[in-house]
Amino acid sequence: MTGKITLGPMPYMSVMPAVLVGSNVKGKPNYMTAAWATVASMAPPMVCVAINKVRYTAQGIEENKTFSLNVTSSNQVIETDYCGITSGSNKDKSGVFTSFYGKLGTAPLAQECPVNIECKLFSSVDCGSHLLYIGEVIEIHADENSVTDGKPDIRKINPIVYAQATYFDVGAETGKAFSDGKKFQQ
Amino acid sequence: MTGKITLGPMPYMSVMPAVLVGSNVKGKPNYMTAAWATVASMAPPMVCVAINKVRYTAQGIEENKTFSLNVTSSNQVIETDYCGITSGSNKDKSGVFTSFYGKLGTAPLAQECPVNIECKLFSSVDCGSHLLYIGEVIEIHADENSVTDGKPDIRKINPIVYAQATYFDVGAETGKAFSDGKKFQQ
Repeated sequence: MTGKITLGPMPYMSVMPAVLVGSNVKGKPNYMTAAWATVASMAPPMVCVAINKVRYTAQGIEENKTFSLNVTSSNQVIETDYCGITSGSNKDKSGVFTSFYGKLGTAPLAQECPVNIECKLFSSVDCGSHLLYIGEVIEIHADENSVTDGKPDIRKINPIVYAQATYFDVGAETGKAFSDGKKFQQ
Repeated sequence: MTGKITLGPMPYMSVMPAVLVGSNVKGKPNYMTAAWATVASMAPPMVCVAINKVRYTAQGIEENKTFSLNVTSSNQVIETDYCGITSGSNKDKSGVFTSFYGKLGTAPLAQECPVNIECKLFSSVDCGSHLLYIGEVIEIHADENSVTDGKPDIRKINPIVYAQATYFDVGAETGKAFSDGKKFQQ
């Protein structure tokens, strides 16, 4: 083990997902790439996503109080990155994916994405440059062939892992949670 | 493309990190495994982590208004999982890692973890079963040999990717963010 150094405060997380935040803005579906997303609660099921206040997507969430998180696959890196570098304010992104709607009616879901998380806005927290949107998961939509035993299957989805401005595949299995810890000996 | 099916509402995210939430509880360092963590804001830098209300760790965060997120490496799967299946309320976990303290003085940092994110509590949101703790990043501590050009380096850290109760390695690079999207053609 080498020594510790300090790097200063920065917005860091080791690994992140790459999702498309779907919202209807001015009546049209729009998708924005986000990596700062995770689960916020088990019961009721909630997720959260941090979005820069100036983003076009934020307008749509504020307007409809609904949004979606669409999980992208590693074979969708180009579309995923395109939705991250292009703003809906000057480019219509409604044709990048085929949109459909679920229970809420106003949260666009991207047909081509293997999993779509349909959310009703629960709360938003002003964190400075970003708003942290917390949404209750109202429904999970998934491609039939991305599901095993009623749950999304990571090996069928092949989701993008995002870190340090790079997209990665998920690698080899290294352990089982709620199990491997039993081997620990102090 | 096959058809879409609905799976019902559930707390789902495609891929997640595995971090240890460090907090001092009753004066002793304690580490709890969490996967529901991400960045919440760029400026000021903030991170968030969802923790079940009944967790011992929650007591420590409420008491000190500080916590840490410690990034674990794939070679620490056993210790990581141990801290997830064992509660500090009935087992002293202070000896699993060597603790040190940074600027805040009350957020324990695990020496053996390649990156330590030291946080001051900014806000907590009651989401039902879980509290979403949002913390301002006060300092990033890292092993010298886990850093490249002043930033944590994923290839040196080899962080754990968590999904569906399984730990994974980070796989092959599949693309460059803020770049590959330029190839998109509609």
